[in-house]
Amino acid sequence: MIKAGIIGDGYTAAELLRILAGHDEVEVVSVLSTENVGRRIDSLFPHLTGFCSLECEESDVERLIGRCEVVFLALPHGLSVNIALRLLENDIKCVDLGADFRLKDPSLYREYYELEHGAPEMLNKAVYGLPELYRDQIKRSAIVANPGCFPTGAILPLVPLLAQGIIKTDGIVIDSKTGVSGAGRTVKPASHFCEVNEGIRAYGVGTHRHGPEIRQELSLAAGIKVDMIFTPHLVPMNRGILSTCYAQLADGINAGSVRKVLEDSYRDECFVRVLPDGTMPHTKWVYGSNFLDIGIYTDTGSSRVILVSALDNLTKGASGQAVQNMNLMLGLNERKALMYAGVHP
Amino acid sequence: MIKAGIIGDGYTAAELLRILAGHDEVEVVSVLSTENVGRRIDSLFPHLTGFCSLECEESDVERLIGRCEVVFLALPHGLSVNIALRLLENDIKCVDLGADFRLKDPSLYREYYELEHGAPEMLNKAVYGLPELYRDQIKRSAIVANPGCFPTGAILPLVPLLAQGIIKTDGIVIDSKTGVSGAGRTVKPASHFCEVNEGIRAYGVGTHRHGPEIRQELSLAAGIKVDMIFTPHLVPMNRGILSTCYAQLADGINAGSVRKVLEDSYRDECFVRVLPDGTMPHTKWVYGSNFLDIGIYTDTGSSRVILVSALDNLTKGASGQAVQNMNLMLGLNERKALMYAGVHP
Amino acid sequence: MIKAGIIGDGYTAAELLRILAGHDEVEVVSVLSTENVGRRIDSLFPHLTGFCSLECEESDVERLIGRCEVVFLALPHGLSVNIALRLLENDIKCVDLGADFRLKDPSLYREYYELEHGAPEMLNKAVYGLPELYRDQIKRSAIVANPGCFPTGAILPLVPLLAQGIIKTDGIVIDSKTGVSGAGRTVKPASHFCEVNEGIRAYGVGTHRHGPEIRQELSLAAGIKVDMIFTPHLVPMNRGILSTCYAQLADGINAGSVRKVLEDSYRDECFVRVLPDGTMPHTKWVYGSNFLDIGIYTDTGSSRVILVSALDNLTKGASGQAVQNMNLMLGLNERKALMYAGVHP
Amino acid sequence: MIKAGIIGDGYTAAELLRILAGHDEVEVVSVLSTENVGRRIDSLFPHLTGFCSLECEESDVERLIGRCEVVFLALPHGLSVNIALRLLENDIKCVDLGADFRLKDPSLYREYYELEHGAPEMLNKAVYGLPELYRDQIKRSAIVANPGCFPTGAILPLVPLLAQGIIKTDGIVIDSKTGVSGAGRTVKPASHFCEVNEGIRAYGVGTHRHGPEIRQELSLAAGIKVDMIFTPHLVPMNRGILSTCYAQLADGINAGSVRKVLEDSYRDECFVRVLPDGTMPHTKWVYGSNFLDIGIYTDTGSSRVILVSALDNLTKGASGQAVQNMNLMLGLNERKALMYAGVHP
Repeated sequence: MIKAGIIGDGYTAAELLRILAGHDEVEVVSVLSTENVGRRIDSLFPHLTGFCSLECEESDVERLIGRCEVVFLALPHGLSVNIALRLLENDIKCVDLGADFRLKDPSLYREYYELEHGAPEMLNKAVYGLPELYRDQIKRSAIVANPGCFPTGAILPLVPLLAQGIIKTDGIVIDSKTGVSGAGRTVKPASHFCEVNEGIRAYGVGTHRHGPEIRQELSLAAGIKVDMIFTPHLVPMNRGILSTCYAQLADGINAGSVRKVLEDSYRDECFVRVLPDGTMPHTKWVYGSNFLDIGIYTDTGSSRVILVSALDNLTKGASGQAVQNMNLMLGLNERKALMYAGVHP
Repeated sequence: MIKAGIIGDGYTAAELLRILAGHDEVEVVSVLSTENVGRRIDSLFPHLTGFCSLECEESDVERLIGRCEVVFLALPHGLSVNIALRLLENDIKCVDLGADFRLKDPSLYREYYELEHGAPEMLNKAVYGLPELYRDQIKRSAIVANPGCFPTGAILPLVPLLAQGIIKTDGIVIDSKTGVSGAGRTVKPASHFCEVNEGIRAYGVGTHRHGPEIRQELSLAAGIKVDMIFTPHLVPMNRGILSTCYAQLADGINAGSVRKVLEDSYRDECFVRVLPDGTMPHTKWVYGSNFLDIGIYTDTGSSRVILVSALDNLTKGASGQAVQNMNLMLGLNERKALMYAGVHP
Repeated sequence: MIKAGIIGDGYTAAELLRILAGHDEVEVVSVLSTENVGRRIDSLFPHLTGFCSLECEESDVERLIGRCEVVFLALPHGLSVNIALRLLENDIKCVDLGADFRLKDPSLYREYYELEHGAPEMLNKAVYGLPELYRDQIKRSAIVANPGCFPTGAILPLVPLLAQGIIKTDGIVIDSKTGVSGAGRTVKPASHFCEVNEGIRAYGVGTHRHGPEIRQELSLAAGIKVDMIFTPHLVPMNRGILSTCYAQLADGINAGSVRKVLEDSYRDECFVRVLPDGTMPHTKWVYGSNFLDIGIYTDTGSSRVILVSALDNLTKGASGQAVQNMNLMLGLNERKALMYAGVHP
Repeated sequence: MIKAGIIGDGYTAAELLRILAGHDEVEVVSVLSTENVGRRIDSLFPHLTGFCSLECEESDVERLIGRCEVVFLALPHGLSVNIALRLLENDIKCVDLGADFRLKDPSLYREYYELEHGAPEMLNKAVYGLPELYRDQIKRSAIVANPGCFPTGAILPLVPLLAQGIIKTDGIVIDSKTGVSGAGRTVKPASHFCEVNEGIRAYGVGTHRHGPEIRQELSLAAGIKVDMIFTPHLVPMNRGILSTCYAQLADGINAGSVRKVLEDSYRDECFVRVLPDGTMPHTKWVYGSNFLDIGIYTDTGSSRVILVSALDNLTKGASGQAVQNMNLMLGLNERKALMYAGVHP
């Protein structure tokens, strides 16, 4: 068994443990924590009773050196850089579920995360971990920046269309709706049950940190800077992100090209399902699974294109994708431990 | 006491009864039903125990003639036309909560409701019942077409900006999220708890019947046909609609004009609250109340404008607005029975 | 207008403000806070926009003296005693929504609240504020201990039966299920949306502080110490408590007596509704209202009696009952500001 | 691969397909349906896209003969008897997820299901499918009556205590709380989102069909007829049952015996987890999994015992347990396809 470590003890760490419990070639040997040192994982996360009896260890990266071949960083932004450097020095592969290696432009990192990046020279070494776009680089990389949950849902439907000139590069609107687990396990007023349940609201309007991440990847695909606006909303549910993406057909392009390009792009992808005509995705259909579903609407009259994607923010939007990346980095079957259906209803 | 009747026994009828129980000048004397004739209202809707002991009567409009001065029609589309004609002949004022008198163009009615309109000559007599836009006509009208729930939330933030040329008339995107009560009390798979709870999905993409209703009012305000797309989503909550409206500043217009125009337009309106800078609405803040809250975001860099509105689909989105219209039609204080805060948390 | 003050700024304070906004003889003139001094109530609780523009004042009881005739204490246990004494010295009536004056036995207070009571001599001066049981004393009292939310739901169905010897005084089981707002607005892991939503659990099994409070009132009614066990459960909803109470018919008592005694006891009570045979209460029917509904099941074979009660923990379970008590203490109509139906659906 | 068939297309059928998609020795080759003949499973249940592309076949048992070695019946009560007989004649093993073979006394079946049983002589041939109690008989049986969801949660905590005389056989109260999927996929007013969400209610008080099933198994364990009352409640969540079971220690028994007996009984059971002292189960911890968790409270003062159990009604409460039974009947590893953790949060 290949030995893996996890730094962090929030929801994405728990989800890594849940997924890796079903992996027959990788075993988690250590979980590092700041607040729960000495507590057993299955007392923190009783759903893992019978699957993980590790005790949380002190959050010191040195503890993992010599014990692990791969480490998942599930940390708040700003904390991963030095840890990742230390791991790489020791030839330990690294999947960072945080935001520290996603933006390739350190000035954007400074602007949105209000921090000077600690190792800007690393930004181009870390591969952006969307296997559907960067599979080959991921396989060869020692460090992968696992994408944000919203970006995964926004980038996968739009990139093939931008790359092939099917839609215009301006006027794109991405209206996303997320469950609450995306905000993490830390208590805060905005995650209080009574403040969320029986209501919906927009947040981070115009300023959310996933905006520049989405723009980066859309622009890379389009070859020019894309004009896009992104608005997240908080929905009273635990898991799931639905992104409704509005765009315009490029001049001279037939509406049918949208479906054709997306189906061609994802035909061989295991975890991306382009839904049939007339079917729009539901986050419930991917609940707890690593799939991303895409529904397509094109208006024959106007040239509007609406793409709706659904994913589970903790699996394809975080820990599932991280395991998919790990599988690729370790030369394993990409689907290992990830081939199960969503839990419905 | 002025006598009122209700035709229909679904959620909007129950909400009318709840609201009118607190009205000191109007009394509901009859509720007509198709499926529940002979059943007491408070056995159908036990939350009204102590407030309404009427028995449902057979759904024959003749029963109301001579007994009522005003009648609310809370019926599926297509059923209101003949009933309304008969009421008007007898000088009974009529608030139609259904869709039969909202669209002024009978060909649009035919296209979206797949029915020939039974009295197209009535369409221009029925006033579109948004008091904030049409108060004077409503006061003088014998029949009011109570707006749809989505249109109320989309029209009120956008109309003042279109009317004053603050935003462009093309490229408008309205992304709405609704609670489940908007789909009514009738059982259907899409309202099954397990099919809704813990998930979100888009529906009626590009085809929802509230699209042409919104477009009609936006175009009337703008003076030209507006290019707009509307997408509703179903959220796991009982009540509430949040509409996120994306537009572009018109050329040469300063971003600050958006707030100024909206605040000026609604300063004297009791039920429309323009929220302060930096505050975005939450449907929970209007839960069970007749308020509509508007939040404003303008991007100084690009010329994007995002308006977010929140309302309760059963009150300001249906029965509350219907009572507001009734108050105006009867020459009563517009706020009667409607001045209470939302139920939070 | 009679002037009222509120000490506290949590959910029960907000609910007092919501209810009193509709009171035409009482006006809230001051809200004292610890953490939000200087913030406007309607920025803390935007659902009150248009209804309360007060700024939170520093939490010093002296600020209320001379300004208020009645004060609501909405504070964590242990903090009310000295404040109440100071208010009473100044002839200000006092409704304590906390737990400091509910238990008449200071040793029980010590055991369950782990505090020495600061003024045990006050315990018998403070009336237990269940108007249906203690209306006359409440009218004459300067200080009322507003009951706990669970006790209100457990005591009202059981007391008449115990008082009249209809059920046995041993083997009583009270299994209660509450919404999350009962735990207050303070953030804590147990109120995190994702830890509550899509699940149910028991808590405080055998040790919850409302146990001795229920036992006290049941025993007073029975005239001997009652053997009772109480278990609360946390349900994924904002508001509402359902209590399922299991008891045995006393020897020689006919099952029909249960309904007769309860109907006789509550026939003239405005806020207690004994539901008809075959109908069991639903917390949704009392959502946001001051009603308590009781459903009755008696098993003709065995001598089992099951009573199910439903209330809204923030209204009849806290702030609504507090206003009911205030109305009585001030000699006003007991129903003032409380006569509205629940919000359903 | 062993070939399996499913008769029925509701939630338990979908859950069988989800679970069996991960089974490496059994393959579903046919699903029979009444209402969806010709529709693909993955259009009915899009979460199974990529896992099941079968088309529903007409509901005629003859279609399965010669094609299957084992068949799951997921049918309303009354429909399984003749089908099971026909399958058994053809040496096809049969797991009935319905109620037709659970009650061993045909007069109870008549009383509670209002039907004459079609093959009472079969009742004692069908083994009650709780592997923890009847593993050896299940291994040897051709037909297994899969237990009801509530009975599974009530029987497993109580049976060892009754069998060993630890608790009294009278005065047992079982107060259960279930998610909505237990009521099935058929639309009905009681499953309408708005009638369930934000509320809790009791139903079937004193009359629910799972009452006699629980009583049968408790009485078998105790050796005498047990006096027990069972009350189910509907909770706004998709999945999960929490059962709070109240009992009295038998005379002369030490409170510590409760934990000892339960731990001894289930130490070697994979799917029953007795939680440590002070920990009470949460349905979220078993969400989507086949585990049943048990928490124990004993009151040292009185002789009260409270046992709280949690399970997922669609897995351990239905389809997971059915697969567990199938594994035993086919001589496979009992845990096959069932060893994954719950989905939390």
